[in-house]
Amino acid sequence: MSDTANSTAKTDEERARERLIDLAAKFYDQFDSGDVPEMEIPTRTKSNIVFDEDAGVWVYGDRTSTRSANSVRGARKLLKASYAIEFLARQLEEGRSSTLRELYYLSESWEAEEAHFSDQDESNQLIEDLEIVSGVTREDFHMRPEESGATLMGPLELREQTRRGEREIHCQKDVGEGGYQIPNNPDTIDFLDHDVDFVLCVETGGMRDRLIENGFDDDYNCLVVHLKGQPARATRRITKRLHDELDLPVMVFTDGDPWSYRIFGSVAYGSIKSAHLSEYLATPQARFVGIQPEDIVEYDLPTDPLADSDVNALESELSDPRFQSDYWTEQIELQLDIEKKAEQQALASRGLDFVTDEYLPARLDEMGVL
Amino acid sequence: MSDTANSTAKTDEERARERLIDLAAKFYDQFDSGDVPEMEIPTRTKSNIVFDEDAGVWVYGDRTSTRSANSVRGARKLLKASYAIEFLARQLEEGRSSTLRELYYLSESWEAEEAHFSDQDESNQLIEDLEIVSGVTREDFHMRPEESGATLMGPLELREQTRRGEREIHCQKDVGEGGYQIPNNPDTIDFLDHDVDFVLCVETGGMRDRLIENGFDDDYNCLVVHLKGQPARATRRITKRLHDELDLPVMVFTDGDPWSYRIFGSVAYGSIKSAHLSEYLATPQARFVGIQPEDIVEYDLPTDPLADSDVNALESELSDPRFQSDYWTEQIELQLDIEKKAEQQALASRGLDFVTDEYLPARLDEMGVL
Repeated sequence: MSDTANSTAKTDEERARERLIDLAAKFYDQFDSGDVPEMEIPTRTKSNIVFDEDAGVWVYGDRTSTRSANSVRGARKLLKASYAIEFLARQLEEGRSSTLRELYYLSESWEAEEAHFSDQDESNQLIEDLEIVSGVTREDFHMRPEESGATLMGPLELREQTRRGEREIHCQKDVGEGGYQIPNNPDTIDFLDHDVDFVLCVETGGMRDRLIENGFDDDYNCLVVHLKGQPARATRRITKRLHDELDLPVMVFTDGDPWSYRIFGSVAYGSIKSAHLSEYLATPQARFVGIQPEDIVEYDLPTDPLADSDVNALESELSDPRFQSDYWTEQIELQLDIEKKAEQQALASRGLDFVTDEYLPARLDEMGVL
Repeated sequence: MSDTANSTAKTDEERARERLIDLAAKFYDQFDSGDVPEMEIPTRTKSNIVFDEDAGVWVYGDRTSTRSANSVRGARKLLKASYAIEFLARQLEEGRSSTLRELYYLSESWEAEEAHFSDQDESNQLIEDLEIVSGVTREDFHMRPEESGATLMGPLELREQTRRGEREIHCQKDVGEGGYQIPNNPDTIDFLDHDVDFVLCVETGGMRDRLIENGFDDDYNCLVVHLKGQPARATRRITKRLHDELDLPVMVFTDGDPWSYRIFGSVAYGSIKSAHLSEYLATPQARFVGIQPEDIVEYDLPTDPLADSDVNALESELSDPRFQSDYWTEQIELQLDIEKKAEQQALASRGLDFVTDEYLPARLDEMGVL
């Protein structure tokens, strides 16, 4: 939602800046009327997380806690918040950006020594608090993540606003085999045109490359999003936008083990740790293609035995509200029963083309996508 | 060195195929003349690694060991090698490719059950053996790595041969802020034109983004290569080609800790584990920019104390032939003395522009690059 080169985006920047300054103004007003300054934020514990059935995502409940300057510790927290707000407001004014880590180090240059962050957890936590209280995401503060997003390949033409001007890029014709690299803030992207029928998010690089080599994106008008394991914020954000703005089905294709189901969960439902971002990052309509425990049996795939940690993770998923459907209960119970897991690339035991000629077409047809 | 769409590259493919078939033919000839088939390979232990002073890289010494079919275990190994050679030769003929993991799973479909790999270490090891014996790299067998390369940004125009035809890409004007994604096999790239004065390999994403945001690539005609931590083969290979073919200085900019010095070492000298690849992947002329222990002192950077594992790693570097220069001995001893390490982004404690306005220009001037 932010960019320097474009007027709609400028409004987002101004909005983010205003909300930050409102927070600082509140401290000022509290001082002015003789009150001890304080900031109220939702309690961020597991007990204050509720599943919003309508939106299909996790959000914070009603409980709040108060950061008050009535103790030295609390006063220091608000001092740090004020410095951080000043820095972020100036950064937005100048159309610049920075990383969480840079913010931590930069605090060393702040005049009041009491305002220096003692470790990076503290500055990360403060930025999360500011996100929650202001209702503006970190990306709109122009805080860049350290981890970069992954890549796209498929029949999509987009325009990216860069600091050096606009770039119009077709994600098949204008890129190499590596694909289009998702920028840190994918809200600088406008979708121009596409022939995409569905989005396929793929966990591993080996499988992503197999699909591209076999021309699956071309043959099935599919946009392949590489998740690169647990997906970065930028990858989840662009996936959500592809669904919401282009009305595209989002399918998730991972290894067949409990950690990969969590990858699906983070695309579809968001994480408990960042429930305030669910509406910005999660795609509740995303659907799981496989590898399903059922596939392991049906296709007699090469497997590894479940480790104890796998069994524990599966059992914890059985009681996780995000995996409460009949489908997931059945699959997870089947996996606990067969005591096996399989990787995406295990499909190669039936030949390199099995995944694109048989497995995916069959699964996608079954799911009504083809 | 391999591609389907271009005639020079086709020769490389044919050459790789011929060398593989030569290996199998040798087994045939041995059978034919009544000898027990065998394969001789350099011994791959630390004691058989020598530092080639001229090339500045690690290579295997003269000792060899023999895989012979005179035992069931040895015969099985040669059987697996024969199947793998057949698979690779066909793959090259068809202009296809696959991953190491796919090869492992694919062996399940081979007729002789004795030829199935029992785990992935075994198939990985076999491919390394074939690389060494044939003198052809894995990339030329069309084996793709699982890990993808990183990105380039700077005044370089290149042509990539993709399966879908040629792509001409300028690594500033035709890419988004994420940059150009290096393909798995960078030997499909031809360098067309450039205004690059030097290559700067950068360890972290946060610092890479800082340099791009500040326009360092533009202001200094610098090609920024993101290493993404320990660099993938594709990243090291393209760095070497940039040095060798375009005669560009290669500078490496990392965090100031022993693990980052190893990242520098892997760019510059290659690793002991894959000494047969040093001449293909290592850039012995690469130079270390920083963060130097000296910088920690001179710029009074925010630091973390050395952990015990850091101290051990530094001490092991002191006795590592790759770090035997006066420069490295001095820096490592200084670091053991001050007992501190610092990250690249710690430079932000002096402001977000310090790295591009002062630190890098001063260091690069000192090193004679500017």
